Amino acid sequence: MPQVAVVMGSTSDWSSMKKTTEILDILGVNYEKHVISAHRMPKELQVFGENARKNGLQVIIAGAGGAAHLPGMLAANTTVPVIGVPMQTHALNGLDSLLSIVQMPAGVPVATVAIGDAGSKNAGILAAQIISLNDSHVHAALTEFRARQTQASIESEEDLV
Amino acid sequence: MPQVAVVMGSTSDWSSMKKTTEILDILGVNYEKHVISAHRMPKELQVFGENARKNGLQVIIAGAGGAAHLPGMLAANTTVPVIGVPMQTHALNGLDSLLSIVQMPAGVPVATVAIGDAGSKNAGILAAQIISLNDSHVHAALTEFRARQTQASIESEEDLV
Amino acid sequence: MPQVAVVMGSTSDWSSMKKTTEILDILGVNYEKHVISAHRMPKELQVFGENARKNGLQVIIAGAGGAAHLPGMLAANTTVPVIGVPMQTHALNGLDSLLSIVQMPAGVPVATVAIGDAGSKNAGILAAQIISLNDSHVHAALTEFRARQTQASIESEEDLV
Amino acid sequence: MPQVAVVMGSTSDWSSMKKTTEILDILGVNYEKHVISAHRMPKELQVFGENARKNGLQVIIAGAGGAAHLPGMLAANTTVPVIGVPMQTHALNGLDSLLSIVQMPAGVPVATVAIGDAGSKNAGILAAQIISLNDSHVHAALTEFRARQTQASIESEEDLV
Amino acid sequence: MPQVAVVMGSTSDWSSMKKTTEILDILGVNYEKHVISAHRMPKELQVFGENARKNGLQVIIAGAGGAAHLPGMLAANTTVPVIGVPMQTHALNGLDSLLSIVQMPAGVPVATVAIGDAGSKNAGILAAQIISLNDSHVHAALTEFRARQTQASIESEEDLV
Amino acid sequence: MPQVAVVMGSTSDWSSMKKTTEILDILGVNYEKHVISAHRMPKELQVFGENARKNGLQVIIAGAGGAAHLPGMLAANTTVPVIGVPMQTHALNGLDSLLSIVQMPAGVPVATVAIGDAGSKNAGILAAQIISLNDSHVHAALTEFRARQTQASIESEEDLV
Amino acid sequence: MPQVAVVMGSTSDWSSMKKTTEILDILGVNYEKHVISAHRMPKELQVFGENARKNGLQVIIAGAGGAAHLPGMLAANTTVPVIGVPMQTHALNGLDSLLSIVQMPAGVPVATVAIGDAGSKNAGILAAQIISLNDSHVHAALTEFRARQTQASIESEEDLV
Amino acid sequence: MPQVAVVMGSTSDWSSMKKTTEILDILGVNYEKHVISAHRMPKELQVFGENARKNGLQVIIAGAGGAAHLPGMLAANTTVPVIGVPMQTHALNGLDSLLSIVQMPAGVPVATVAIGDAGSKNAGILAAQIISLNDSHVHAALTEFRARQTQASIESEEDLV
Repeated sequence: MPQVAVVMGSTSDWSSMKKTTEILDILGVNYEKHVISAHRMPKELQVFGENARKNGLQVIIAGAGGAAHLPGMLAANTTVPVIGVPMQTHALNGLDSLLSIVQMPAGVPVATVAIGDAGSKNAGILAAQIISLNDSHVHAALTEFRARQTQASIESEEDLV
Repeated sequence: MPQVAVVMGSTSDWSSMKKTTEILDILGVNYEKHVISAHRMPKELQVFGENARKNGLQVIIAGAGGAAHLPGMLAANTTVPVIGVPMQTHALNGLDSLLSIVQMPAGVPVATVAIGDAGSKNAGILAAQIISLNDSHVHAALTEFRARQTQASIESEEDLV
Repeated sequence: MPQVAVVMGSTSDWSSMKKTTEILDILGVNYEKHVISAHRMPKELQVFGENARKNGLQVIIAGAGGAAHLPGMLAANTTVPVIGVPMQTHALNGLDSLLSIVQMPAGVPVATVAIGDAGSKNAGILAAQIISLNDSHVHAALTEFRARQTQASIESEEDLV
Repeated sequence: MPQVAVVMGSTSDWSSMKKTTEILDILGVNYEKHVISAHRMPKELQVFGENARKNGLQVIIAGAGGAAHLPGMLAANTTVPVIGVPMQTHALNGLDSLLSIVQMPAGVPVATVAIGDAGSKNAGILAAQIISLNDSHVHAALTEFRARQTQASIESEEDLV
Repeated sequence: MPQVAVVMGSTSDWSSMKKTTEILDILGVNYEKHVISAHRMPKELQVFGENARKNGLQVIIAGAGGAAHLPGMLAANTTVPVIGVPMQTHALNGLDSLLSIVQMPAGVPVATVAIGDAGSKNAGILAAQIISLNDSHVHAALTEFRARQTQASIESEEDLV
Repeated sequence: MPQVAVVMGSTSDWSSMKKTTEILDILGVNYEKHVISAHRMPKELQVFGENARKNGLQVIIAGAGGAAHLPGMLAANTTVPVIGVPMQTHALNGLDSLLSIVQMPAGVPVATVAIGDAGSKNAGILAAQIISLNDSHVHAALTEFRARQTQASIESEEDLV
Repeated sequence: MPQVAVVMGSTSDWSSMKKTTEILDILGVNYEKHVISAHRMPKELQVFGENARKNGLQVIIAGAGGAAHLPGMLAANTTVPVIGVPMQTHALNGLDSLLSIVQMPAGVPVATVAIGDAGSKNAGILAAQIISLNDSHVHAALTEFRARQTQASIESEEDLV
Repeated sequence: MPQVAVVMGSTSDWSSMKKTTEILDILGVNYEKHVISAHRMPKELQVFGENARKNGLQVIIAGAGGAAHLPGMLAANTTVPVIGVPMQTHALNGLDSLLSIVQMPAGVPVATVAIGDAGSKNAGILAAQIISLNDSHVHAALTEFRARQTQASIESEEDLV
């Protein structure tokens, strides 16, 4: 049963959101993936949000760009934590996506990560951190992942030539 | 029967959105007004959007601030034209509201006006312009309103002392 | 008789504004297209604006970039609804175009859409939404267009591989 | 035993971060609160981060302003999820705080919420959402809280006079 | 005969633009002052611009705020140099005014000065600099003004207590 | 004898500032051109500024990028009108150049034009407008130039295919 | 003999720059203070910069606002390290000051600190850090100052009530 | 013994930070170079900072991007002057890096230079300026370097063809 849903507003977000799923694979988190456009599929969005908890989802990761309403509207329909990933955009480079996602009014939060690929990867790690609170396998994978990435940074110093 | 719905995300938007209704009163446009929070009342939002056309609405005016999802989500649920008014916000002065409303992806437009009170007033005028295409009373009122405001500007020059 | 005028400040805006006309074609809206530079052709702009209503135009769509004065000055000369499309610009990516169009003072609104191609397309859809209030053919085309685009989003999920 | 730590860089952040603790009180989440300045107390920060998991913390909420390094540096020292709250600042209104918190490089995420009081409140709700995944009391409180706030929004419409 | 016209979009700009006229008084430049709203008085704007040169104006100073079209549209109708003063605005602090004035497309320049009162004063000085090229009285006044302000700066050091 | 000096901070600005000289050639304005780096050649800058008026210069056009101090420091050393051209920059696209040039404190104005090539061209036109106040040849050339560019815009409409 | 010069563009900067001198007093650094307006006193600026090293100055701290040219132009005239403090401004909150100071082209650096009072204080500390490299008294004072401020942060936690 | 440490958060910063080391080579400053990721290597960062002074370092130069915490956290752990270089970033072009580095709260300064390569070069020059206060070799090299770059600017004028 999927622990996480990776949702995006359009297939054009997939090249970035794929990095989320790659991290989830590394960390041993089960997930499903969906296209749900907030503006083209508002009914599907609402049904998905309303059923998220009963479907056993522990985290929803939602990537969207521009006037990005997907993460916030999913959060409006569930108490499952929603992580929002602001897609980099053509004109405003993702500043529009970021503000549309992070500036939620009091009452309904979205856990926002960085614009673009760094955010896509971090959304996967953050989801794993949440799941690891009650999943020792994921916790172990996460601990190893973090140790490996520290080691890789330490060793990278030799590349400064 | 109301021609226009004036909708806002919170009663805290009313001090600005009231200016919309004052313009609609001047221009002889019938309207109803509602609080529909996109994030606290997502079901009500969807029902409202879905029924807008059959309820005879010709324009929806939606004011919202911050990660402002109300105008775009209403537009996602109807083909009635939606005018979005970005509320001025505490931290980012309404730049967040503006980008969250205007930067809609292709497929679902929101007719966005200026941040704050200028936008609230102009939303009423724009709604009247749309309605005036097929309502000669509103057209006449609008024509007179515009003439009066031109005359007022011309006469204001004497105040430069 | 054209229902809509698609106006732009320069032929360099055509590659984006062409997307407006493609949408209008799909939605069965009649239109004419013009180059009217606010700064190089101010007299032509004013004559065009003053005659818009008597020429039967129901919507004017105006695309312009930088210190974009075309939409606002057309709106200053007519009560026909004006939709402004902020062109993406070289240095400031269209933020200058957006603010020059959307931040109209109280009294003369411009219905502003997103920067660049998303906005160009949405300007066509928004114009059709306005016209559809009294044109059942356009309404039917719009309803079908929206249904198709929802269906396309739903089906696109299979492309997440 | 505290489930959540509410940490801030300075007592000047307390007027905003107090709203986090008020929400946690309402939602029945146990918490401790601390001042840990990233720049004045780097050693204490590191010790705190390193011990967070073994001390049983399930979420760390960190508020900071300007070049806000506290949330990111806590996240660098633990796998416990860290929620970052960008404080509103004097000169740049919190845009500096927001970018310093949300734009984390790949590898170490911070779950960022809105600038200022809206974010402070939402940090509490988000923490409760995470804890509710395995705490039925918090889940029940959260469900009731959300229902109440929806009801309050619905009823607020009568105040539009 | 006035050498300079000081024009503004609204009497609300007068408190700032008055500083322009005070500088012109000091520098011995003759001027007239007008309210010409680009959006409410487009015909008057055009007539004013077209007649500027034949009326003997050597410089036009135009103050406007928000989607500020007045300076650019005056420049579009004359070859007399136009100085644009971006008014400070409520929501975006004058960044909108600045970009709407300075980002003119190639072909029609506006000589833009700083946002708000500093710009209002500098518009007067810049106009005097232009006029001084062929007016020895203004040149002498300007030279003295600059010397006095240098001296005042030098002497102000004693106030650092 | 040159009427205008075209000055730039670095030869890397030449590809843009060359467009200034091309316009000056078209409009029959005599000019000289210089590299004067405000930060590498502060003494040369000051000498140049101090001698500008006695050398017969009627306008100085200064292009600079980033923390662009050249236009303002030239203006500080002369009463000859200085036109500042903000160069487009690598990181911040010229927003830094623009603010460094236009936001002059009261007392010493710089006539600022648009970022990049549009500004470079307009600087030439603005200089010609100033000179044309007392140079009938330049005035005639300018009038013809403006008529030609209007005509070219009108004729460009046929290219919308 | 002063080790540091505290320079500002105007007495209006003194309320902020006074905080620099208070820190220098605490840290036992000798200083002199001056008003040198880059735009009103360019000759004095140049003389001051050229003589800085021979006058024994080890650090120059320069506060300026808007199109802030003082720090960069001082740096252009000396090899003494220059610390630039961006003053908070009325319209753009100091973003203009910041970019005008920090975005120096390659060849002439300015050590830039935060906008406003935080920067004014930090300029004093940074100057002391530089001087402490060869002044054991200042080093001792700095070490004690840092220890005290850490202790004060630690103790401030009791104020969270 | 190295006088300067050049530290960066990732090897991806090396292409820019290499320019720092090239300047240090030219100016005869001894240096060491390191990769220390604030977020992946927080313990190493702290140890490095704490030992900097006793290891004889006179300046630390730290380059980092995005939510750039490296310069500020190094500064938090030492009284050695820290120069921060904001790396240009993919989405926000380095504005995020700049604000994360420069907007340090009162108490712990970072000497911030320009975004990207200009800043990388200037960091080297600024470090040399600091060291030159007590190192006559570096002072001589710096004086010659500055003279050469002035001469190169002067001579570059012939390239304006």
